[in-house]
Amino acid sequence: MKRTITAAITALMASAAIAQGPAAPPDPAASDPIALGWMQGSPPAPDKTVHWVDGSFYKFPATRWSFAHWNQLIPASDIWRGDGRVAALPRAERKDIAGISFQPANGGATMTWEQALAANYTDAIVVLHRGRIVYEKYYGAMSPQTRHIAMSVTKSFIGTLGEMLVAEGKLDPAAKVVQYIPELKDSGYAEVTVRQVMDMTTGVKFSENYADTSSEIWTYARAGGVLPRPAGYSGPQSFYEFARTVQKDPDAAAGAFRYQTVNTDVLGWLIRRVTNKTIGELLSERFWTKLGMERDAMIAVDPSGNEFAGGGLILTARDMARFGEMMRKDGKFNGQAILPKAVVDTIRKGGDKEVFARAGYAALPGWSYRDMWWVSNDDHGVFAARGVHGQTIYIDPKAQVVIARFASSPQAANAVTDPVMLPAYRAVADHLMRR
Amino acid sequence: MKRTITAAITALMASAAIAQGPAAPPDPAASDPIALGWMQGSPPAPDKTVHWVDGSFYKFPATRWSFAHWNQLIPASDIWRGDGRVAALPRAERKDIAGISFQPANGGATMTWEQALAANYTDAIVVLHRGRIVYEKYYGAMSPQTRHIAMSVTKSFIGTLGEMLVAEGKLDPAAKVVQYIPELKDSGYAEVTVRQVMDMTTGVKFSENYADTSSEIWTYARAGGVLPRPAGYSGPQSFYEFARTVQKDPDAAAGAFRYQTVNTDVLGWLIRRVTNKTIGELLSERFWTKLGMERDAMIAVDPSGNEFAGGGLILTARDMARFGEMMRKDGKFNGQAILPKAVVDTIRKGGDKEVFARAGYAALPGWSYRDMWWVSNDDHGVFAARGVHGQTIYIDPKAQVVIARFASSPQAANAVTDPVMLPAYRAVADHLMRR
Repeated sequence: MKRTITAAITALMASAAIAQGPAAPPDPAASDPIALGWMQGSPPAPDKTVHWVDGSFYKFPATRWSFAHWNQLIPASDIWRGDGRVAALPRAERKDIAGISFQPANGGATMTWEQALAANYTDAIVVLHRGRIVYEKYYGAMSPQTRHIAMSVTKSFIGTLGEMLVAEGKLDPAAKVVQYIPELKDSGYAEVTVRQVMDMTTGVKFSENYADTSSEIWTYARAGGVLPRPAGYSGPQSFYEFARTVQKDPDAAAGAFRYQTVNTDVLGWLIRRVTNKTIGELLSERFWTKLGMERDAMIAVDPSGNEFAGGGLILTARDMARFGEMMRKDGKFNGQAILPKAVVDTIRKGGDKEVFARAGYAALPGWSYRDMWWVSNDDHGVFAARGVHGQTIYIDPKAQVVIARFASSPQAANAVTDPVMLPAYRAVADHLMRR
Repeated sequence: MKRTITAAITALMASAAIAQGPAAPPDPAASDPIALGWMQGSPPAPDKTVHWVDGSFYKFPATRWSFAHWNQLIPASDIWRGDGRVAALPRAERKDIAGISFQPANGGATMTWEQALAANYTDAIVVLHRGRIVYEKYYGAMSPQTRHIAMSVTKSFIGTLGEMLVAEGKLDPAAKVVQYIPELKDSGYAEVTVRQVMDMTTGVKFSENYADTSSEIWTYARAGGVLPRPAGYSGPQSFYEFARTVQKDPDAAAGAFRYQTVNTDVLGWLIRRVTNKTIGELLSERFWTKLGMERDAMIAVDPSGNEFAGGGLILTARDMARFGEMMRKDGKFNGQAILPKAVVDTIRKGGDKEVFARAGYAALPGWSYRDMWWVSNDDHGVFAARGVHGQTIYIDPKAQVVIARFASSPQAANAVTDPVMLPAYRAVADHLMRR
């Protein structure tokens, strides 16, 4: 068992290392998981079989299959779509989008939209313009009905839920977290407010640096069952037990924005505490039963059954686009009010730009972070949900565009692909605005 | 880790022991998992939290919650319902059913239908008469949209798939298994035919006696990831790898019926091999997209991603009833032919009664086994899918009745509840025939 755990950690670290190293990434065209035979056959060949316990599920190019089959690897709970009708997304497909060309921000040569998608390991892409599908494509193991792990795009669903509860007066952003969750009184969250949790300015000690084996992310992942636990593991049994062990970081600057996934699980805990419902129940009641979703979604759970608010959502690209479209329309979808406009306004207002700038996201100049959303503060009012390996909901209100994208980039960090994909998204939006 | 594995095994053995011991079973009314607080709260209390790794998920009364949340405990793959309309089951509910009284076959006092349901830890019950819901009730953690583990009811879906492939000429029942799966040539399946697998007359050595720690069922469960693996586990990594280790039983009488779950996984393997599709894809294509199912189903997978054909299906009670209704209607549903009548005829014909009688199922006199279905050979032509802890699809063609039932009886073996539930099912069928 110890050996398989080590392998799992090595696989994850290799993935992180690629993100930081200068080595050329693998050839995207050669990484189609179906062509490569990953999990194909009856049964698949042993060397093309993905396992969770040895970490092979998280090793590129197996990830191109795993990300599209997450609940086959990790237990997950249900997000029911209800028994209502599917809200069909009208189609107005445009052949001119594929060839839209743009200049990457990294000094690379001009490329087209379709080149950018392929080169960046896209698994699924849906582009809505004024609520209609103008472009849609699936790669590798994906299809319109296939659910993909959303990684940290999940956080924006949770942040939106949180802001909805604020609007309803059920959650006070100025209150201390421990007012709702006394269990955190001896942790680094003792003095932290709800607003600080929602905006990731908590000042807790939690490093998300995969390349450092002493990072808190490792204990966190084991507590949450995201990674196998070593033999004799006696650490925290859940995300929430882990959160109780988190310390205050004496070196954290007051009010600093630091992207720490554990904060989202604390927000998830707050949401559950004030509603006495599970995250799955809430996502079903608030979004899945109301947005005419095509499929039930799922959300990964930790070994104690708590949903992984920081990154566990498993859903289809079209359903992700529906959620984005609702946000673009200030909380309305299909003529129904899903959430108050004030919630979207609060999110779109963004966080403190100075504070964000100090966090060093070179690919995101002028951006800020608010309610678990990334806010560009640009001339189009773009805001986005973002997850590692390329997952995103990109919302451009001025261009009336929503882009939902799943990917399995070998690099975890979006900093690697942002210089290509952000200009690509903008080019499509500009093009659609013009004609 | 070793301790938690031992706990898991102890929990399972305790469950099996209850099945055999004379001790009075726990009070059903006092075992409502919601009332008891199992997995209730944000988060649930530690002593009311269900874990897979320590076996607590399989300990009564936690099972009353676990059986209704199986994919939250074990990874499972998708069975897509497609994007067609739900085939609504017409409703013609009858208040007179609750009070139908009958005489249990165990010498117990006369009881009513509702008393029998409650006393036998029913989680969900749907009764169809001429295709209409005449009785429907949910208990504890269940609701119409909640999916429950079907245990060995799964086998009948797989057996039906198998017989469909026979009808299509894709699977030859007279052929040897190794003609399709050469990987089994050194196992106890070397000389076994497809028909023998389908009817569980394979003569392999595989004891399903939970109370004996040397039973093959334990290695099988660990290989398939149904139970946690001990530290340093180096045994088979999947159901199929396990199947290759199964030996011929020198003591098995020729042609003897022996209920051995591994046979269903071999049938699943055969089905995958001749179709080159997964079980989940086939169940979706053949049944879920065609029967107007209300919800996607899931099926538990082993750590290598192979579906647990022997017992992994997770579905709603109504969808289980739809499948039963299609079987009652000789393969037709909603006016559409789902499978040829010849397939149902073959199943209903049953297996060899003499052979079955020698297997010693005292509660099932005159029954036989065919294509992973239990066939009563009675005057109503009753046949049934059956899973441990009370899961069933009971089909009475003469009375035009289908009963779909989920339960979480503390006793695994249906032999314990059959003397009550089989007369109860018959009493309801007789009642509905009369008026």
